[in-house]
This record gives sequence, C-alpha cells and structure tokens, in this order.
Amino acid sequence: MYLSKCIRFCLQQTARTVSKESPLWKRYSTAAVQPKIDTSFVGALKTIVGDANVSTADAIREQHGHDESHHAVAMPDVVVFAESVDHVSKVSKLCNDTKVPLIPFGSGTGLEGGVNALQGGVCLDVTKMDQIVQVNAEDFDCTVQPGVMRLGLNNYLRDTGLWFPIDPGADASVCGMCATSASGTNAVKYGTMRENVLNLQVVLPDGRVIDTAGRGRRTKKTSAGYNLTNLFLGSEGTLGTITEATVRLYGIPEKTISAVCHFNEVSEAVDTVVQILQCGIPMAKLEFLDDSAIDCFNRFCKYDMTVAHSLFLEFHGPAYGLEDQFQSVKELIEMNNGFGLKQASDADERNRLWKARHEMVWACTARIPGSKPYSTDVCVPITNLPEIITKTKQMVVEADVIGPMVGHVGDGNFHIFFPCDHSDTETFKKIKDISHKMAVMAMELNGTCTGEHGIGIGKRDLLVAEVGEETLGAMKQIKETFDPNNIMNPGKVFF
Amino acid sequence: MYLSKCIRFCLQQTARTVSKESPLWKRYSTAAVQPKIDTSFVGALKTIVGDANVSTADAIREQHGHDESHHAVAMPDVVVFAESVDHVSKVSKLCNDTKVPLIPFGSGTGLEGGVNALQGGVCLDVTKMDQIVQVNAEDFDCTVQPGVMRLGLNNYLRDTGLWFPIDPGADASVCGMCATSASGTNAVKYGTMRENVLNLQVVLPDGRVIDTAGRGRRTKKTSAGYNLTNLFLGSEGTLGTITEATVRLYGIPEKTISAVCHFNEVSEAVDTVVQILQCGIPMAKLEFLDDSAIDCFNRFCKYDMTVAHSLFLEFHGPAYGLEDQFQSVKELIEMNNGFGLKQASDADERNRLWKARHEMVWACTARIPGSKPYSTDVCVPITNLPEIITKTKQMVVEADVIGPMVGHVGDGNFHIFFPCDHSDTETFKKIKDISHKMAVMAMELNGTCTGEHGIGIGKRDLLVAEVGEETLGAMKQIKETFDPNNIMNPGKVFF
Repeated sequence: MYLSKCIRFCLQQTARTVSKESPLWKRYSTAAVQPKIDTSFVGALKTIVGDANVSTADAIREQHGHDESHHAVAMPDVVVFAESVDHVSKVSKLCNDTKVPLIPFGSGTGLEGGVNALQGGVCLDVTKMDQIVQVNAEDFDCTVQPGVMRLGLNNYLRDTGLWFPIDPGADASVCGMCATSASGTNAVKYGTMRENVLNLQVVLPDGRVIDTAGRGRRTKKTSAGYNLTNLFLGSEGTLGTITEATVRLYGIPEKTISAVCHFNEVSEAVDTVVQILQCGIPMAKLEFLDDSAIDCFNRFCKYDMTVAHSLFLEFHGPAYGLEDQFQSVKELIEMNNGFGLKQASDADERNRLWKARHEMVWACTARIPGSKPYSTDVCVPITNLPEIITKTKQMVVEADVIGPMVGHVGDGNFHIFFPCDHSDTETFKKIKDISHKMAVMAMELNGTCTGEHGIGIGKRDLLVAEVGEETLGAMKQIKETFDPNNIMNPGKVFF
Repeated sequence: MYLSKCIRFCLQQTARTVSKESPLWKRYSTAAVQPKIDTSFVGALKTIVGDANVSTADAIREQHGHDESHHAVAMPDVVVFAESVDHVSKVSKLCNDTKVPLIPFGSGTGLEGGVNALQGGVCLDVTKMDQIVQVNAEDFDCTVQPGVMRLGLNNYLRDTGLWFPIDPGADASVCGMCATSASGTNAVKYGTMRENVLNLQVVLPDGRVIDTAGRGRRTKKTSAGYNLTNLFLGSEGTLGTITEATVRLYGIPEKTISAVCHFNEVSEAVDTVVQILQCGIPMAKLEFLDDSAIDCFNRFCKYDMTVAHSLFLEFHGPAYGLEDQFQSVKELIEMNNGFGLKQASDADERNRLWKARHEMVWACTARIPGSKPYSTDVCVPITNLPEIITKTKQMVVEADVIGPMVGHVGDGNFHIFFPCDHSDTETFKKIKDISHKMAVMAMELNGTCTGEHGIGIGKRDLLVAEVGEETLGAMKQIKETFDPNNIMNPGKVFF
C-alpha cells in the first residue's frame, strides 16, 4: 500500500504533468543541446573518418532515426560510419567540444526508441567495426567489436562447440545488447548480459578510451576497483560508446529437449511456471504465449498451432538426467490441466517451434498493416506473475484491442506487443493506458517497468516512479560526471 | 608482451615510487582529511545515537581498527554503533559536514585491511542492525540488515528448504560481503555476490538514503536505469554505507556428493580442474589445496589427511544425473594420475572435509604463533592456471617460506595464506616480493590481482597497473561525485 502510494505520487509529479518551470524539471532534466551542424562541422567529421563515411542523405538519416519500436522517427543531422576506436574517440571529442549530440547506433533493433535522434546531431554507426577480435575457446570467452551480430557470432563459433546463449529474439549486435542490458529466452539458465560480460571497451564523451575491467582482463570474477562493466551495461548510450565487449561463452548442450503444451486458462499456465521454478528444475527456456499470440503467429506464418494459452519449454544439459527433468515438468503440466504436450523430436521441429516465438513481434504487427510494435516489458517476482498476467489479459480483452502476450515467464518478465498505428488515436490512447497501468501494477507488485528493453524515450517518467527521486538523483550524478555537456544520446533514460 | 610492458610501466609510475609532488599523485590521490574529533563532535554523535552507542575506549577502538589481515592496526578516534538507517544517515551527514572520515564496520572479517582507520575518524559499527527484514521463500529472495551474518541467515532459513550459498569461508556479514564483492567456494555454480544481489539500501556520505534498484524491487532482472547495485557492490565502503541487502536464495540441493583426491604433481591437479571445466560438468565446488596446506591443517586440527596436493570436490543437484557427473570426474582424475579418491558418505564426513578448507587461514597462521595472514588473491582465465600455480609454488619453495596454497580453482582464483610476522623483516620482505610477483604474473596472464578480497590498503598500486590510468581515472570520477570530501573509508582502493 505504501509502495503504491509512493509510485502514484511520483508519477503525478513527473514529466507527464511538470512544466519546465518546476523544480522537478530542473532537477532531472538536462537542458536541450543546441546542435551546431554546419558545413565546417561536417568537414571536420570527414577529416576524421573520410568523406565516404559521412552522410547527410535523407534516406540514410531516416534509416538511422528510429529503431523497431513505434516511436516517431527523429533523424540525426548527419550519420558517421566509424571504422576504428580512434574514429569513435575523435568524433566523440569533436561533438563534446562543440556540444553536438552523439547517438551510438548498432543494429537498430531496440524497442524503446533508444537511437532516435531527439535533438538531431551525429548518429555514430559502428557496424563497420565488425571483427571478432579473439575467441578463447578453452577459456569460454571471446571479444567482439560493435558490428558483430549475435547470430553471426554463433555461426562463427559453431566449429568450436561453443555458443553465446543470450537471445533477445532479434539479431541484435552483441555490444548493442550490452548497451540495453538485454536478455531474452535463455536467461532462465544463462542469465542476462549483466552476468555474461567480462570487460567492455568504452569511449567516453570526451574521447577517452577505457576498458572497464582493464585491457585484456577476462577472468570469471574480480574485486579490483569499481564495477564499471555493469555501470555501462544498460546505460543505453548515455554514458559513452561501447567499442568492444568480452563475453562469456558456453558449451553447446549435449542434449536439448524442446516441447510445447497448452492450457485453457492463463492462470493454469502461469501456476505451472511458478511450480516448475519453485521445484528448482533447471530449465533453459520457459516461455508463455497466450491464445492471441498463437493466433497472430498462425496467420503470419500460415501455421496451424493449437490456438490456446501455451508454454514453450526447453531443457539443456548432459543426456543423463534431462529426461527425468522433462518427466517432472510433465507431471506439473498435467496437475494444472495442461494438454497437448508435444516434444520436438529433432532440430528442425525445434527450430519451427522457436520460430513462432521469435517472429512474434512481426506476427503481431502484421495484424494491422503499417503498424509498428508498442511493446510493454514488465517483470515481477514469480509469485506475483499470476495476478499481473491475469489482470493484464482482462484489460486487453475489455479494451477490445489486439494485444498478444508473450513472455519470458521463467524470469517473471512478459510483454504485450500491441500493433500500433499512431493515426488511430483512439486505439493508441487505449494501448498507452494499458501499458501505463501494467507498469504501475508491476511496480506495486515489487516489479519493474522494464525487464530487458530499457527506458529509452517512453519510460522516463516510470523510471522516476520506480527507483524514487533520491536514486534517480544518484544516477543523474553519474551522467553529469561522465557527460557534463549532455551530448550522449540526450533525452534517453532521463528527461 | 605489450600487456607486460604496460603493467611494469604503470607499477613503476605509481605509489611505490611517486612523491606527493608528482602529477600522478595529484591525479590519483585524494588529500588526507584532517579529522576534527573533539568533545563537541563526540557530543553531537551521542545526540544522534545515544550515549551508550558511542565509545572512545581504547579496547573498542583497537578492536575496530583492523580486520583479519596482517595490516597494522589503525584505530578510529571514536566508534559509533548505529541502530537504524536514520542513525547511519545522520552520522554520515555530520561527518560529511565536518569532513571527518567515516568507516563502515561489519564483521571485520576482511583480508585487505578494508576497515583499518588510516586517518582516524569515526568507525560506524552496523552490527546492531541485525534483522532479517523479510524472506520471500516462494520467490527465492530475502532482505537483511547489515548485522546479519551468513551462517545466521542460513540457520534462519533452514526450515524453508532454502539457503544463501555464497561462502567466503569466514562468517562474514551479508552486507559486508556486498561491500567487498565476495565469493568463495560455491561460486563455480552459484556465482559471486555480483550475480546474487537484487537491491541494496545505501546511505550516501551526505546522508541521502537510496535503494539502488528502487525500494521494494526484487525482480530477477531489470533494465531500469543505471545499475547502481553493482556499482556499490565491491566499492569497499568508499562510496557509502550499505544498510540493507536483498539477495537471491536457492533451494537446498536434493543431493550433495563431496569427495577428495590427491596428486603427486601440482600440474596434474590443475590439469584435472581445467579439463573438468572444459567438459562442462556443473560442479558446485572445485577447490585445490597443496601439500603444504594439508600439512598445516593436519597440525592445526590433529587430523591425518594424506599430505599431497589435493582437490576437494562437491556436486549439488537433483539425485538423477549426479552420480554420472561424479563418474565423469573420476575418469578425469584417473587420467591425470590422481589417487585416493574418497567420497564423503554423509553430512558429518562432508562437514569434516570442508572444515579443512574453511579453517585454512587459521591453520596457516598457527604455524607461526602471533602471526597474521598475508593473503594473496590472484585470478586468471582457467587455461593460464597451470602456469601461474606451478611458477608460484616454485617461488614459495625457493624462498623457503611457509606458504600454503588454497584456491577456488574452478574460478581460476587461488590464494597463498602466508603466516606473517612483521617483526621478522626478512621473511616479510620475501612474502611481499612473492605476492607482488604473483599479482604481476596474473595480470600478464589476462588475470586480476584480486579475485574476491578487494583492493583495500595493499593493492592500490596494483589496481592502477591492472586497469590502467584512464579506467582508474573514471573510477575516481565516481568517487569524487559521491564523496567529494573523501570522508568514506579514505585511503582504501585509491591512494
């Protein structure tokens, strides 16, 4: 109750209602940067990275002015393609000296408008830096540049018997996944980016290049000084540009069992999840898709999966023991009236199953042509999952909007991917309202408004409500320390 | 080679040689605080916490002027016992306003001189705040105050079927373990504190109280704003005082197998470890004790363990599969000429086995009456373990000092616990020399000078060498932001 009051109070106080005259605005907002993008500035950029690596073409700027979310395109004034850390360092210094906004750009697969250039400025595309710097197969680690994508890395690693398991669905860049502290379907077993990064090379706004754990460090643990690695993880490009990441790898599991089952009631599916976790069964994936999500997928991919609330399950491990784990889960499913349990017998069938999960964002938006995904991303302690999922489902049904629900319920995290068309203002209002209520409900249930997508543009007010004014103040102190001119991705995370 | 040159250069440049006039000193050192501890200041403390909670008695100050390491006692001017967050906040504010050093004090079980009051000031003992605030058994988490010890928490949890597995050996306070980013024998399976803390309540030097993830947050993951939790984890009391921690719990394993085996050669034992890890066998504990360590333990506890390089192993899990894991490990041990593999059949035998490991610090110092432990704490990627362990062992033998080696080799982390008597200057010099060479060697092998004990007093020069000047500069920026008056545990981590 206390929590609830606090959250509601904070939300009332924050940006939804405050004017620029309010002391709250002054406390949390950072004054808008006045870009000075003229011919001489563009010339200076060209001197650093070469003519071919600078573009002011509309098409290129448009392409770099948005991610995969519904947020309106906000184009940078100029796009720069960096080919080296030295490029990144010099461009950063130039922007800092001239107080021009700088927005690092990787794969552009974010879902919170993290790359939209709200105040114009320079978009720094780092995808040309695409080398896998080293793979230490016997130590289970590798180092990659920011243009290396998750799937590309895993293709490269195949012969080593290793893989990088963090899987947010999209083929994001590994360094971009660092920037948003991504996770995804395998986090139940392998953790999120937070647990899997050993070192980051970061270019600070003033051009300094640091290695968060020290150059070349790649130990599983360390107590040497402040944990800068985890500070830059999830900082959404607001503190610096990540130019290299050393991440943990894992052995490809000896055996994998994938399965799907269905439920008539949402609560039965969620109760099953809670019980599986409480029994300590070491799942690799534990995903929920409601009937609406399955329906979207069937339409999108011309499949014929049973349209019902479903759990997608996966077990990784040595061959011994895995079948026993599966049997234990089977018992729990039956106890909760689950039906149609079907095991994927080979890799093809398994891939088909997970395709349904991974294409969900596009399957959802395909329901309304021209729409973009408006994604919610709440996460709660697992015992609070049944309540929030049931209430959310009810809100979606009552509002009569298309709102398929999918979730990494093994982590207490789930999404609704609303297909969103801004021109349909009535539906947009309904979506926004449900999204806001979900976030408030999550916070009241000891949860968070963002389990893995980040704050970006749309959740800045929720962040204040979630962490409180004092904690937000401490975060802002860090921002101001490293980026006193507020050039790094201005308008993200904080107002 | 490049790495090695950098490290050697940095070490030449840092505190071992620099004078106060050097620009390096100015860059990294923070001017010594001039404490103003007089009757009126002590009176102000008494007004905050009550007369009975303030002591200037020599015995109390001496007790609070050291941890369990060899570092010389440095007494605070006054010891304050806080009973609430409000006490901590007000005392912090008073110290900050008057620029008096403030040193948070938990169980005092550190090994790097983290609590020694180098510049006097106030020692803030938080052990009276000893409540287990809440246990959410079904969500696998709990929240504790800073006086709650690891063993006390586990006793309290016993009936729930849960436990807090992070085990640094000593009965440290959970919040103290947060402050040093501790780990220990179970980290191979359960990770370190870094992976197991969901939220920290921290009192900043100016008295502000923050919850790093927001009050009441206890989700398994979040992407909401900067990761302050991991910033304060391992900050060794230099950024604020931890007054509450929400940590993850785990189900007590259905089955546990413990075992010990022996080797004639160090390299055989270490090769076994590397192979076990590379096979991906999910060990819970994987500890190495050399012949000298076993000898110390036999003398200390009047036991008769085989005096040879030994591996202590433990497997946790559901009953199914565990025996297979054990058999796989057995094969690897035999392949590497291991002998005397003995499985602990029940809890008593298991406890006896681990007693040997946990009492090692005291078993070592018992070899030289009146000595204190001088602990090394290097950590390297696992493929570099054989080289560093072999060379270290050689150095100890050549120097002809007592230097038992024990290690969490499953993490690439190991220690030598030298019994250290400062009055024996010749031996002390030898110990210091080996310790320094180990750290440099670890860094050259992509490792760290401290896997889990922290920087404290003794490794400040090594920190510069390890992370480099630019990264250290970034750490110092954070220190200066939160603690501009340098009152928090001055002289630790940084010069």
